[in-house]
Amino acid sequence: MTLKIGVIGTGAIGREHIRRITNNLSGGKIVAVTDVNSEAAKAAVEQFQLDAEVYPDDKTLIASENVDAILVTSWGPAHQQSVMAGIEAGKYVFCEKPLATTAEGCMEIVQAEVKHGRRLVQVGFMRRYDSGYQQLKEAIDNRFIGEPLMIRCAHRNPEVNDSYTTDMAITDTLIHEIDVLHWLVNDDYKSVQVAYPKKTRHASSHLRDPQVVTLETQGGILINAEIFVNCKYGYDIQCEVIGEEGIVKLPEVASLQYRKNGQLGTHILMDWKDRFLDAYDRELQDFMDSIRTTGEPQGPTAWDGYIAAVTADACVKAQDSGQHEAVELGEKPELYRGTVNRGVQV
Amino acid sequence: MTLKIGVIGTGAIGREHIRRITNNLSGGKIVAVTDVNSEAAKAAVEQFQLDAEVYPDDKTLIASENVDAILVTSWGPAHQQSVMAGIEAGKYVFCEKPLATTAEGCMEIVQAEVKHGRRLVQVGFMRRYDSGYQQLKEAIDNRFIGEPLMIRCAHRNPEVNDSYTTDMAITDTLIHEIDVLHWLVNDDYKSVQVAYPKKTRHASSHLRDPQVVTLETQGGILINAEIFVNCKYGYDIQCEVIGEEGIVKLPEVASLQYRKNGQLGTHILMDWKDRFLDAYDRELQDFMDSIRTTGEPQGPTAWDGYIAAVTADACVKAQDSGQHEAVELGEKPELYRGTVNRGVQV
Amino acid sequence: MTLKIGVIGTGAIGREHIRRITNNLSGGKIVAVTDVNSEAAKAAVEQFQLDAEVYPDDKTLIASENVDAILVTSWGPAHQQSVMAGIEAGKYVFCEKPLATTAEGCMEIVQAEVKHGRRLVQVGFMRRYDSGYQQLKEAIDNRFIGEPLMIRCAHRNPEVNDSYTTDMAITDTLIHEIDVLHWLVNDDYKSVQVAYPKKTRHASSHLRDPQVVTLETQGGILINAEIFVNCKYGYDIQCEVIGEEGIVKLPEVASLQYRKNGQLGTHILMDWKDRFLDAYDRELQDFMDSIRTTGEPQGPTAWDGYIAAVTADACVKAQDSGQHEAVELGEKPELYRGTVNRGVQV
Amino acid sequence: MTLKIGVIGTGAIGREHIRRITNNLSGGKIVAVTDVNSEAAKAAVEQFQLDAEVYPDDKTLIASENVDAILVTSWGPAHQQSVMAGIEAGKYVFCEKPLATTAEGCMEIVQAEVKHGRRLVQVGFMRRYDSGYQQLKEAIDNRFIGEPLMIRCAHRNPEVNDSYTTDMAITDTLIHEIDVLHWLVNDDYKSVQVAYPKKTRHASSHLRDPQVVTLETQGGILINAEIFVNCKYGYDIQCEVIGEEGIVKLPEVASLQYRKNGQLGTHILMDWKDRFLDAYDRELQDFMDSIRTTGEPQGPTAWDGYIAAVTADACVKAQDSGQHEAVELGEKPELYRGTVNRGVQV
Repeated sequence: MTLKIGVIGTGAIGREHIRRITNNLSGGKIVAVTDVNSEAAKAAVEQFQLDAEVYPDDKTLIASENVDAILVTSWGPAHQQSVMAGIEAGKYVFCEKPLATTAEGCMEIVQAEVKHGRRLVQVGFMRRYDSGYQQLKEAIDNRFIGEPLMIRCAHRNPEVNDSYTTDMAITDTLIHEIDVLHWLVNDDYKSVQVAYPKKTRHASSHLRDPQVVTLETQGGILINAEIFVNCKYGYDIQCEVIGEEGIVKLPEVASLQYRKNGQLGTHILMDWKDRFLDAYDRELQDFMDSIRTTGEPQGPTAWDGYIAAVTADACVKAQDSGQHEAVELGEKPELYRGTVNRGVQV
Repeated sequence: MTLKIGVIGTGAIGREHIRRITNNLSGGKIVAVTDVNSEAAKAAVEQFQLDAEVYPDDKTLIASENVDAILVTSWGPAHQQSVMAGIEAGKYVFCEKPLATTAEGCMEIVQAEVKHGRRLVQVGFMRRYDSGYQQLKEAIDNRFIGEPLMIRCAHRNPEVNDSYTTDMAITDTLIHEIDVLHWLVNDDYKSVQVAYPKKTRHASSHLRDPQVVTLETQGGILINAEIFVNCKYGYDIQCEVIGEEGIVKLPEVASLQYRKNGQLGTHILMDWKDRFLDAYDRELQDFMDSIRTTGEPQGPTAWDGYIAAVTADACVKAQDSGQHEAVELGEKPELYRGTVNRGVQV
Repeated sequence: MTLKIGVIGTGAIGREHIRRITNNLSGGKIVAVTDVNSEAAKAAVEQFQLDAEVYPDDKTLIASENVDAILVTSWGPAHQQSVMAGIEAGKYVFCEKPLATTAEGCMEIVQAEVKHGRRLVQVGFMRRYDSGYQQLKEAIDNRFIGEPLMIRCAHRNPEVNDSYTTDMAITDTLIHEIDVLHWLVNDDYKSVQVAYPKKTRHASSHLRDPQVVTLETQGGILINAEIFVNCKYGYDIQCEVIGEEGIVKLPEVASLQYRKNGQLGTHILMDWKDRFLDAYDRELQDFMDSIRTTGEPQGPTAWDGYIAAVTADACVKAQDSGQHEAVELGEKPELYRGTVNRGVQV
Repeated sequence: MTLKIGVIGTGAIGREHIRRITNNLSGGKIVAVTDVNSEAAKAAVEQFQLDAEVYPDDKTLIASENVDAILVTSWGPAHQQSVMAGIEAGKYVFCEKPLATTAEGCMEIVQAEVKHGRRLVQVGFMRRYDSGYQQLKEAIDNRFIGEPLMIRCAHRNPEVNDSYTTDMAITDTLIHEIDVLHWLVNDDYKSVQVAYPKKTRHASSHLRDPQVVTLETQGGILINAEIFVNCKYGYDIQCEVIGEEGIVKLPEVASLQYRKNGQLGTHILMDWKDRFLDAYDRELQDFMDSIRTTGEPQGPTAWDGYIAAVTADACVKAQDSGQHEAVELGEKPELYRGTVNRGVQV
């Protein structure tokens, strides 16, 4: 059984996912595309020699009987409308982050899905599918380090351009840590705080960089998360979980070891696109496989998208206030209990 | 365009490749299977819910108009016949090692392919598709370490069963190093020698273990290859290339770092099956992609299969003689020049 | 020229220093000892076959014409009196931490030394003499990582006994980071804050463990310091400095690498006494060498002892308040400017 | 009790040892010096402000009643005469390598010492005192890796000058491995073989570089030793012991870890003088301590010096013959049994 997929938004990430599904993965087929720029949609069909129809807009694409599932890869502000329409039509939805640009928007999606009664939506938080994070998760779940007490992590980019603003450190960058960390420790956030170390001379005048976010969970785990988007030296994702019996740490990206010019070293990635390639493959493969085998996607849920939005809001508030800000989620709907927190087979 | 594939031999590795092509990769479809045990062939069809016909033998499968390419995953002694029949029928052939059980058999295949005039055959030496080896290859080709002078490598298994014999250290184990190392340095072997260190108490009475094979290339590169198949501690593949300007070394398998019980460590794989999973995926994906895009497979050639056979013969001879034994290949046919030594896009 | 040394306090650390000076180092000689328990003092003389006189108390020892320098290794509350007497008598003083048990006490010593007009006192903060910290210092001073922006460090012990209290995490444990970190970045502390992660089950009921202290410097450097004294897995000192151009990190303690039982690892020290052995040797050797060559000790000053006391007080206050607490030092006396921040030749 | 030491040869290494004993170590005093260049001897006295007499030659220095022990740091061809005279006079002797320039010369020394009836001589093979090798030794002796089966090691220098000849790769470079490896595994050499990989373009025209020496022990352990004295990238000493239950490897020299410019790395030493600084200190301290506490030096013996000479001769022969060459030691005198193979307290 092949999942027939319609793609809404054929920009860079949309085309990447089309390439994946068409050339690398199995079980899915792109049968429909649309884009606000219809030429772009046509170009994508041509580029990948798709046997796919070009639709004028998301509504008509979603309405098509030929479409089983939609991939929402348009720009952020357009996500909510497509996801809502997808749920209404009973179609599966894979939506790139953000699920919606506001917590309220995410909650509307949650409520629509709850009303539908079964899971349809998966949010594109791919880190849960990274083998390093999956090893961390497994170690924690197996109690290899006992109860987790603290997490130290860092999200570093070599540089960002001038349009990157202080709040984007939360909404575009930390957002991945926000999702993956609560999944990692099976806990919810309680409060957040932001501090600003000395600013790097490489940051643009309007940008606070680096930043340090402290998140505390309901269970008391203290998370120290550094965001440093002009670190110059490389794209580097660090995560270390300190437990009662020991510590586990994300592996460095495997890279050949060299001895040259008085240095013993390995290479660090410079481009974020190279870091989670396997995870992108796996999240989409899991989306397709889970629908085939269980009838529901099993990856990050609409509720996870809502958690990310609420937590990011609290962090942005804390950027300004300098104070602890509470993260208030409300009660988790029945639909998202028990089923949750599954990554995928390693 | 989907490559229609017939599988000859539905044992463990045959079924693994069927699973890969069906569930993980794109561009190929299993349309035919056969096995000396026809029940096994039928069971494979059922297990993977294939839309594939079961043939009584390799000849009828190869003759089928529906089959574009064959996957030879029968037991070793049966390979040559299937490959020869495939070439005669002008079908693409992916053959697991060994290409044939003798150097003469490999040469017959080479000659048949040369006569055919275009490449049809790829041998299942998957290490060239491992990202670690590809990084080594790239570093060497880019002259990152200048001219390579020496290689040190090790092939270690935690244990083998009693049926494993001294010569299998060459024909089953070292065979992978034999293939990948000459590819790595773009050179041919000139002579080999075997030495026996102190024997481990964990080896069965008839088995010399460990062994150390020294291979010298035409260009003078000296290769020291340890084979240790009862090393107990893990499945471990090491390779270090020492050049005029520096050294490069295969990365350790990425594994989370832990601190626990007075140890700072990572896990070593115990099962060889976990080591080259990605490489297996990539070799088959490249086989299918190359046929689609260039009309010929671009991976290890029949000539590479022949090199492996001739070199292994010299090593086995050296096991007995204790002397340097020459590796004599004869002239490389035009068909295999220039085209060669390509791995695949990382 | 041999420095004639009198030891005040022949407990464990006193005897360790006697052993060092007598058996490992050159340029010094123990000529006098005293202890509140005079039998202990006599036993030390015997144990190391010293040619040394036993004095009834610190005053008489300090008054002895035969004594050039004193080593204050009595219990903490007795330090201040001995140091003050030493300064009054114009003797060199090597005082184990704390210089005095209160910031006021430290300030009195500072004022006495300032009045004396030359440096006499060195405080036993040995980390500055550790080759790892010295490499960090050199990298920072050479601008290898540009301007330092953040520091992440951890001080972990496998376990502590029941008498260890929450404030001792500051006064006995973090005290070493407090000293070494401001030296490392040539900066002064501005404020501190303490947070409590989830408590480990291995801590006694009255102890908050782990703790996370945030220190901000005058220059804006943000320091995140974890104290975890029941971490079980080992004695582990971590320090990482994040700068504008890169990051430097304390080397792991050199330990042989093993592959065994599916693990690739090294050993972590379990006993803190093994961690800074070389640094203890070097601090005392530098004390003796500096006096010989420059007439003044060049290691951590009385002012550094005062900084440690004031900063520790602020941290202890912050443990209770949960708030940012200011670190207020007052003006640094002329005596301690310029000369400062020297470790020792690596 | 202070050991009164006379130094024969005040060249670079002689002065280094004088500095050590005078400024870094305890228990010894330089009371006499001599050099073929008497001005050099006087200059050394002045440089270190020694309270030492300058003697016209080794004989008169050795004859002095004031001298307990001699340090032989003259040029190699002069060693034997001084050592023999020292033994005759019943003085302790610390002799830099080589003990004598020929195996016969070493044997004469052995016989003289045996005749004397007690150990007087220690040879300056400092690697046994390196903490890395001592950890290896301890792991082997504790059977952490079971029975050792193979050793892989490398001795690499960034470069050598034009006067360095092919045989010096054995007599000046490998000589350290020759000593330390048989000590490490408590075994004797049986045969050696030399192979020449492709030559580096950085070697002078007359020099074979790199070289690979294979040594086999009486117990069957196979040692693969690479010598590469123009490796460019650094001074690098590698040693890995492969045993029945696992592998242990010399730690890399501790150096801070950095992340910069797309690299994750540490620094490799460029100068051999920095590599074994601690080991030089320890070997001399042990020489002095052992004499004080046991009446005999406990480090590498005259017999060890003889083993090194005989083995080096076999290697040089093998460089020319390309064949296995036997290492024939004759019977080990009673004096060197049992007492042997002790390193020193770590």
